Amino acid sequence: MSLLTVGSVAFDAIETPFGKTDKIIGGAGTYIVISSSYFVNQQNIVAVVGDDFPKEMIEKLDERGVDLDGLQIKEGKKSFFWSGKYSNDMNSRDTLVTELNVLGEFDPVVPEAYQNCEYLMLGNLSPEVQLKVIERLKKRPKLVALDTMNFWMDIAMDDLKKALKKIDLLIINDEEARQLSGEYSLVRAAKKIREMGPKYLVIKKGEHGALLFHESQVFFAPALPLTDVFDPTGAGDTFAGGFMGYIASTEDSSFENMKRAVIIGSAMASFCVEKFGTERIENLTVEEIKDRIDEFVQLTDYDMTRAI
Amino acid sequence: MSLLTVGSVAFDAIETPFGKTDKIIGGAGTYIVISSSYFVNQQNIVAVVGDDFPKEMIEKLDERGVDLDGLQIKEGKKSFFWSGKYSNDMNSRDTLVTELNVLGEFDPVVPEAYQNCEYLMLGNLSPEVQLKVIERLKKRPKLVALDTMNFWMDIAMDDLKKALKKIDLLIINDEEARQLSGEYSLVRAAKKIREMGPKYLVIKKGEHGALLFHESQVFFAPALPLTDVFDPTGAGDTFAGGFMGYIASTEDSSFENMKRAVIIGSAMASFCVEKFGTERIENLTVEEIKDRIDEFVQLTDYDMTRAI
Repeated sequence: MSLLTVGSVAFDAIETPFGKTDKIIGGAGTYIVISSSYFVNQQNIVAVVGDDFPKEMIEKLDERGVDLDGLQIKEGKKSFFWSGKYSNDMNSRDTLVTELNVLGEFDPVVPEAYQNCEYLMLGNLSPEVQLKVIERLKKRPKLVALDTMNFWMDIAMDDLKKALKKIDLLIINDEEARQLSGEYSLVRAAKKIREMGPKYLVIKKGEHGALLFHESQVFFAPALPLTDVFDPTGAGDTFAGGFMGYIASTEDSSFENMKRAVIIGSAMASFCVEKFGTERIENLTVEEIKDRIDEFVQLTDYDMTRAI
Repeated sequence: MSLLTVGSVAFDAIETPFGKTDKIIGGAGTYIVISSSYFVNQQNIVAVVGDDFPKEMIEKLDERGVDLDGLQIKEGKKSFFWSGKYSNDMNSRDTLVTELNVLGEFDPVVPEAYQNCEYLMLGNLSPEVQLKVIERLKKRPKLVALDTMNFWMDIAMDDLKKALKKIDLLIINDEEARQLSGEYSLVRAAKKIREMGPKYLVIKKGEHGALLFHESQVFFAPALPLTDVFDPTGAGDTFAGGFMGYIASTEDSSFENMKRAVIIGSAMASFCVEKFGTERIENLTVEEIKDRIDEFVQLTDYDMTRAI
């Protein structure tokens, strides 16, 4: 078992109907590795930050079993910064600021010690960078998962399509699935997207749960009905981290086990939205995670044996 | 076991991205009794039509075990007519025509033979009419369920609140739950609505499934991911018919059995949207229904035993 994550490690400033933050730690890579750290004791990350990135956070990641040889720290440069504001119903957000900084010239270097990774999670980044990582791995991992977003479909669709041909699992949201496929029906969208490369597809629907597609099989997991969603930032990345952390720890990428991974990803995401940024997922106990998974089982459990 | 449905029996004209119909048979009451007829052999309806309503449809309902003593046929008057057009994504619709006709002066007469009904489904109608039916039953049914819509919240909220105090189960959609409670979070909405009267609450979320609330318990059932939704008209009523037909046939209104009823209602609704109007749900076999329910079980089945 060895899990490699590639993704942004960055700063965010977030405004929701419940409040706003100053610059806090964010980035897809950060959420992914924190979430997966509850399932794998050791993992690797390939990412880049500027010298403005706090040492304490790097130490925290180290304590959580994240090897940091693949984290490039660029002297005299600034970390990626994103700022956004959510609508009142939390279903949409406006980007206020995007400063690429070190991410603009990110050349993902894969340390020799990471070469034998069996599970690869390519967090949302430019498809060009994602492709470079795949090419720079001498041995193909057992399972390659990729997340992306509408932005890359707008400006780098050709590279994205190349990347899709090389992966096993695509994890995107419903809006992205519709844009990528040009189909409104998610069933049609899933069929088209799987023809583009990935054998497995997860479509995240936010508060409406997530769908897992493989060949003729479909699995649906709800999101936990929450009293309040405090801050949705990073929920999708936290899902991906829980999903891939669980797959890597069990060394089982069968459809049956991916169903469990979807439930676990959903449980982790349900924590993420309870506080700003990574605050909630940095401080979970195994008991809390088990209880949350039990809530999912309760929510979805029914017995149709001899029903009609 | 005896199920009484009160609801409109009417004409609809529907336009969707897939086509449009002339005047076809519609009405909440029609969808409900057709759907529940797959679970109960005999049932009663209280409704009103004009003399323009086709005899063949009345005969069809009779053949499906619907007692028609409670169906008033008003000579020289016209049946209720609604016409609507769906948006391209089917998520919204505009009402083009509403002609109340006989429904405008509907006085719901409960035949003596219906007095001992144990299960009462009050389909979407004016709360005043729904209240009259409750008052005209000499013995309270074991379970009283009610459906309503935003329109009645706008113009008859006081009557609706009176009705809510007298029922056990409210079946509404997410938008209606938000308007009724003034809360965006469905968890908060559910709490407020149950304080208004109904111990049980179903919130239908269309393509996103349905939630069942009772005390501290929540159950979630997905909608079946469909390649195409051809016509959503009547899907909510078909859900309610399947739900109440199953509850009445099993004579069990426990939370555990209501979970099964939600799955069955969802399965019936998934048929309804496949064709215009009642066409699909008029011609189902028990085998088709069982297979569809199996699809729901497949879609939601997972085993978290010893997962982490």
